Amino acid sequence: MVAPLKVGLAGLGTVGGSVARLLQKQESNAPESNVLATRCGRPVKLVAVSAKAEAEMHALGIPGLRFVPSPATLAADPEIDAFVELMGGAGDPAKSAIEAALSAGKPVVTANKALIARHGVALATLAEKHGVALNFEAAVGGAIPVVKTLREGFAGNSFERVYGILNGTCNYILSRMEGEKLSFADCLREAQRLGYAEADPTFDVEGFDTAQKIAILASLAFGVQVDPDAVFVEGISSIMPEDLEAAAELGYRIKLLGVAVRTEQGIEQRVHPTMVRLDSPLAQVMGVTNAVTVDPAGFPPITLVGPGAGGAATASAVVADLADIARGLRAAPFGRPTEALIGSRRAPMQRHEGGYYIRLAAVDRPGTFATIAKHLADEHISLESIVQRRRNGEPHGGSSPDSAQTPAPVILVTYATTEDAVRKALSEIKNRGVIAGNPQVIRIEKN
Amino acid sequence: MVAPLKVGLAGLGTVGGSVARLLQKQESNAPESNVLATRCGRPVKLVAVSAKAEAEMHALGIPGLRFVPSPATLAADPEIDAFVELMGGAGDPAKSAIEAALSAGKPVVTANKALIARHGVALATLAEKHGVALNFEAAVGGAIPVVKTLREGFAGNSFERVYGILNGTCNYILSRMEGEKLSFADCLREAQRLGYAEADPTFDVEGFDTAQKIAILASLAFGVQVDPDAVFVEGISSIMPEDLEAAAELGYRIKLLGVAVRTEQGIEQRVHPTMVRLDSPLAQVMGVTNAVTVDPAGFPPITLVGPGAGGAATASAVVADLADIARGLRAAPFGRPTEALIGSRRAPMQRHEGGYYIRLAAVDRPGTFATIAKHLADEHISLESIVQRRRNGEPHGGSSPDSAQTPAPVILVTYATTEDAVRKALSEIKNRGVIAGNPQVIRIEKN
Repeated sequence: MVAPLKVGLAGLGTVGGSVARLLQKQESNAPESNVLATRCGRPVKLVAVSAKAEAEMHALGIPGLRFVPSPATLAADPEIDAFVELMGGAGDPAKSAIEAALSAGKPVVTANKALIARHGVALATLAEKHGVALNFEAAVGGAIPVVKTLREGFAGNSFERVYGILNGTCNYILSRMEGEKLSFADCLREAQRLGYAEADPTFDVEGFDTAQKIAILASLAFGVQVDPDAVFVEGISSIMPEDLEAAAELGYRIKLLGVAVRTEQGIEQRVHPTMVRLDSPLAQVMGVTNAVTVDPAGFPPITLVGPGAGGAATASAVVADLADIARGLRAAPFGRPTEALIGSRRAPMQRHEGGYYIRLAAVDRPGTFATIAKHLADEHISLESIVQRRRNGEPHGGSSPDSAQTPAPVILVTYATTEDAVRKALSEIKNRGVIAGNPQVIRIEKN
Repeated sequence: MVAPLKVGLAGLGTVGGSVARLLQKQESNAPESNVLATRCGRPVKLVAVSAKAEAEMHALGIPGLRFVPSPATLAADPEIDAFVELMGGAGDPAKSAIEAALSAGKPVVTANKALIARHGVALATLAEKHGVALNFEAAVGGAIPVVKTLREGFAGNSFERVYGILNGTCNYILSRMEGEKLSFADCLREAQRLGYAEADPTFDVEGFDTAQKIAILASLAFGVQVDPDAVFVEGISSIMPEDLEAAAELGYRIKLLGVAVRTEQGIEQRVHPTMVRLDSPLAQVMGVTNAVTVDPAGFPPITLVGPGAGGAATASAVVADLADIARGLRAAPFGRPTEALIGSRRAPMQRHEGGYYIRLAAVDRPGTFATIAKHLADEHISLESIVQRRRNGEPHGGSSPDSAQTPAPVILVTYATTEDAVRKALSEIKNRGVIAGNPQVIRIEKN
């Protein structure tokens, strides 16, 4: 058997610890049971680590590891053949450590979505210059091999759309809200208690985590320069249990999706709560599970479903990336030369086209619904469904909302229209004083 | 841009024609729109073809192609860099053409599941000897990148189980039978009319197609030598509409699955109609769609869903395999050196462990159910559910089947037991004359 691939690992948190243990487990197997070495044709051996404290290394209980206090020093260490960055964070020390490794001609594996989303093009350019791999399978979708699938699995195809459930926290919260008819706040607390959500949940629940991930997938699928600022972002904190209930009644389920789609205006990248049809594969995905649908030009979509987080699942992706390096497999980080990547720009969401779900609190007086209908018609918005509920929660049947004796929410589902038209119509409706509060607007994604 | 990868293609049926057109479409694009060349860093150019008649080549309307009557001559042609085999069939001319290409040091792409299932180890050994790729993504699951996923995506992991819906014809028939309450024969005719089933449907509906595919996946996942004879096979022709109805009532759906699973007796490979829980990802897959679930040791499963057949979808996988060759990515055909593959043997199905669905036509006389219960108990089989239907199709409620006034089917769902125990118990029950006809037995797969 040829020489081992000697690995240096910076960051010993949940994922780093799992990677170290997985490599050690394979190394300590009898040769015929070391599947990693068998698959790679050579052992993959962890030789040195960097962490905030040397005690973290000793806690692993793996003998013979060398501790290097500085990640950047470890990255360029002549004794390592590949560098794994699992510290996280969009800037230093992760960034400078990866730069040090690439500049020293060492291939890099990272799970750092923030860094790849923010500095992916510059890092890929550096990797290309030095002819080494920059692999980041674990940055999106945990154990789901979505980066490899987009980078290598459809090389001859153009894509129409790539979209998915990329944040387990949000999917857990929405699943619980629907299943238990609980409020967003209650489910968030539950998610925090179970360790699915951070003490400051903003990054997850307001969609920023999903935005970084869809920016990476958009780059792989469409060849745009990865740029999280090109993504329109809206989170799930305004979703109410009545929206989830109405969605189900209308044949939909609400998911926080990251969507990258080819439009006449270019590649539109967006993250927002989305109505997906109940019979779509993404609608079936509940709890912390992630899923990505790849929509190629010319044939039906492919959906990948699996664990999007967790130490063992994420470590699996990191080690698969290392195995590609050990085997000498190297594709361009974003699937094509960086000079071929085209500039991305923020999607002009006012020109977004699609169906909309709109929930209004209509004021209970004659003419309210006529006013609503007029302003929708003025913007050429056609309605697919109208649902009004009585106070007791039962649908109101066929009678006009105007005849309701008590104020009640009105739910409208539009046919395809533009964001601009919806915003204008709702602004006029609000100005007329026929609705209380702000309308709830949720985009519908075709499948 | 570096020199193109010059491709020779043998076989111009549906898939061959789609591959030729896909390559031609990319070549005729402006350089910046040739995504294949951009992704590979070089063009991929079809230069020569082989087919039964030269007219098939002219029908493509692609200028400048050279026709080579003999596939094996084309395979070793000094003017081509890679050979694509899309003729099909487990023997010659496909086999000798691939051998000629590999022996001439040319990488090979094939969609030929029968050939890979039957001669995969020998061909992989030859590819290894000459240091060239043997890629067969399109042999299993059409456009779904399941071969790459198993070969490269989980290099550090062991698997517990790989299983899936690998035959669109069977899934279409079962979906129609359930949806429309039609018989197997009616749905088969419908599938034949729509072109989803062959005039002789045996290969599909009796499970042999699925067996070849699961043998390939078992080799990739578990490192056993690919061998379709090691697979236990049972088809769907005995499934009745009442089985599908009973399954739904019990919270299951019936799918023809290929399953490869690690057991104490080794790797068990089997194909049979299977009860899967209604909330499992595989249960959601209807119609001609395929799906594979990969169950790694240590974290939740990953499921891949997509089109398992069709010219464009299959061509996508063939071209992705070519792109790997153009990029210089080469993994071992079965994910590890052929000498590391271990022998496979036919699963001893009598030792298969799991739950069972059993449908009996119980003779209507006192003591029938006591006899059935006794023989199950003698084999230590415990029952999870018992359903008896009245003639009008309504469940019988809580009363004992013995009290039924007319003979009626009895449905039993067992807790985990062995195939051996079930067969013995049913044989005794039949010998006692308390049931009419043969019992229907369908295995239940945990998820």
